[in-house]
Amino acid sequence: MNYSKRIKRLQKTLRRKKIDGILISQPQNRRYLSGFTAFDHDISESSGVLFLPASGKGFLLTDFRYALQAEQEVSHLDVKIYQRGLSQFLKKFLPKQGIDVMGFESQYMLHSTVQSLEKMFSKLNIKLAPLTGIVEKMRSIKEPREIEIIRKSVRLNEKVFKAIFPAIQPGKSEIEIALALEQEMRKRGAERASFDSIVASGDNGALPHAVPTPSPILKNRSLTIDMGLVLDGYCSDMTRTFAVGKADKEYKKIHRIVRRAQLAGLKAVRAGVTGQEVDKAAREVITEAGYGKYFRHSLGHGVGLAVHEAPSLSPRGTAKLKEGMIVTIEPGIYIPGWGGVRLEDMVVVTRKGCDNLNRDTTWLDI
Amino acid sequence: MNYSKRIKRLQKTLRRKKIDGILISQPQNRRYLSGFTAFDHDISESSGVLFLPASGKGFLLTDFRYALQAEQEVSHLDVKIYQRGLSQFLKKFLPKQGIDVMGFESQYMLHSTVQSLEKMFSKLNIKLAPLTGIVEKMRSIKEPREIEIIRKSVRLNEKVFKAIFPAIQPGKSEIEIALALEQEMRKRGAERASFDSIVASGDNGALPHAVPTPSPILKNRSLTIDMGLVLDGYCSDMTRTFAVGKADKEYKKIHRIVRRAQLAGLKAVRAGVTGQEVDKAAREVITEAGYGKYFRHSLGHGVGLAVHEAPSLSPRGTAKLKEGMIVTIEPGIYIPGWGGVRLEDMVVVTRKGCDNLNRDTTWLDI
Repeated sequence: MNYSKRIKRLQKTLRRKKIDGILISQPQNRRYLSGFTAFDHDISESSGVLFLPASGKGFLLTDFRYALQAEQEVSHLDVKIYQRGLSQFLKKFLPKQGIDVMGFESQYMLHSTVQSLEKMFSKLNIKLAPLTGIVEKMRSIKEPREIEIIRKSVRLNEKVFKAIFPAIQPGKSEIEIALALEQEMRKRGAERASFDSIVASGDNGALPHAVPTPSPILKNRSLTIDMGLVLDGYCSDMTRTFAVGKADKEYKKIHRIVRRAQLAGLKAVRAGVTGQEVDKAAREVITEAGYGKYFRHSLGHGVGLAVHEAPSLSPRGTAKLKEGMIVTIEPGIYIPGWGGVRLEDMVVVTRKGCDNLNRDTTWLDI
Repeated sequence: MNYSKRIKRLQKTLRRKKIDGILISQPQNRRYLSGFTAFDHDISESSGVLFLPASGKGFLLTDFRYALQAEQEVSHLDVKIYQRGLSQFLKKFLPKQGIDVMGFESQYMLHSTVQSLEKMFSKLNIKLAPLTGIVEKMRSIKEPREIEIIRKSVRLNEKVFKAIFPAIQPGKSEIEIALALEQEMRKRGAERASFDSIVASGDNGALPHAVPTPSPILKNRSLTIDMGLVLDGYCSDMTRTFAVGKADKEYKKIHRIVRRAQLAGLKAVRAGVTGQEVDKAAREVITEAGYGKYFRHSLGHGVGLAVHEAPSLSPRGTAKLKEGMIVTIEPGIYIPGWGGVRLEDMVVVTRKGCDNLNRDTTWLDI
């Protein structure tokens, strides 16, 4: 990846906003601009922050635990190791950097952290400027190389699904299948699952974010599997719903409505339309079939270094889609006491439509 | 658990601070006060917030995805479902609640979230008051029932370690062993691992936070395993280091220094001493043996609903330990190009000393 080029684009934006430098704390933004792959388990346990001045060379600030990794992975930034926390380090480091206004990522910095930085910065006569979504906006449009990696991530995810599919039998527990999926991902080279896999049988399928239970997978009932993995930092995300055994009439009817909604969504995607227009195209199919109140989440979201990122395909998504964005199309119908159906593919937005990254067709058209 | 009693204690603190209510966004604090077990994968994807007035009944605010779970798990709070985000909900809900000053968890709310709440609250004439660590302080002292659950969590973790130990053979990869540990945890009823297991062979052991690699476990070299699980919400955390095959003289020497440091730490723990005093007792052993510069992290940390929580046993830990706190004692020596040794047990602080929750003695005294 051309990290220097990305940083130069960001620096141009900073200069336009009259900001002298920025602290990048959001882990995916940090990776996007530096190539540093360290993973933060929690916002309060950061593995490092970038300091990028509005022009010139930037810095990766991290602690000794990541010193070796930082030196190996990051060549276009100076790596600095702090001993007693970031704040203490910045206190000594910043006065030499000629910064009057320092930007920070308001959407990924804790209120308490900003408070303590503010205190320290006021002594240095540095003003803090909250910024939101600048790097996320850059990330939303994928470079050709990123699209290729995501394509591989999607394909590997499908291979994992296919490998485990024959093992999905009545009586096995949801948790067993979820574990098998995650183990297969790691075996085949994924860094990890991009989110906790959803394996929801029967009634459990009525919860869009169902957590796998020790309950057995039920015969002749629906099973929803929502799964994704991380490959070279990039996420995949796919959902399939099918009957384990025989599908009854009711199931088939609802499945077909969801599939028609998905096809309508896929057809509506192209550069220039808004997220809400695509959402509407799919949602109308479900509403007209009389199930509108059972589809209560957004139609889709961007996917990249994060499994949920910009843009949003929802009734409130007013931003226009652009060429090179990658989004999910995932309508669903969820009926308490009955179960649910969700179908999800990932597509690249093109000038005239979209390129579906998924090839798997298990139980799509029934 | 007596959630109502915990809330009453918190409400007393609020009244003393002249705060009319508080929003609890930190997931473990939310669980501690409500019993709501939903898990937040990320600070930007919350599964709910508590609103607790300074007196009277409180509320769990969540969205429809968690409605069923909330009703099942939470009986002492009113469950309210928001449709269009928390902020929109509060705008309508709060004016009826008689709040002039609203506390929030500064250490677990994003700067951008606080900014948008501030904007909305100013229209309602409500002042926001940042608070930090109030519930964390309550959580740091464990109730007898919590100690019993944590004891079970520690024992289960040891059972998992013992079950996988025979499979640790040269040639197997670090990742394979890490996966086997995590699968065994889930098989035996753990909710999940409390953190990504560390399995670090040879040189890799020099990184305190090593990520398991596809590299083979090396014969006659050291292996560090740092693992923990979550049982009924409560975490365990244990580290063992041993030689896979024969330990050479150098290994034995360093291992014994770390073990002596651990014993010194264990001996120093009791109610009334500060975290830094315990840290010092262990650190001195390592420093006097000439390895001080190779032990660069804290001696230990609290464990409970979170795997890292108050108190801190570090050179900067000035707070006094109290009866019923649960902490790790985990000295280590890490030598680049050679490897590392870390030994970690979990103890309950008692009036006169401590009660070691671990029973496993694998390779402790060699």
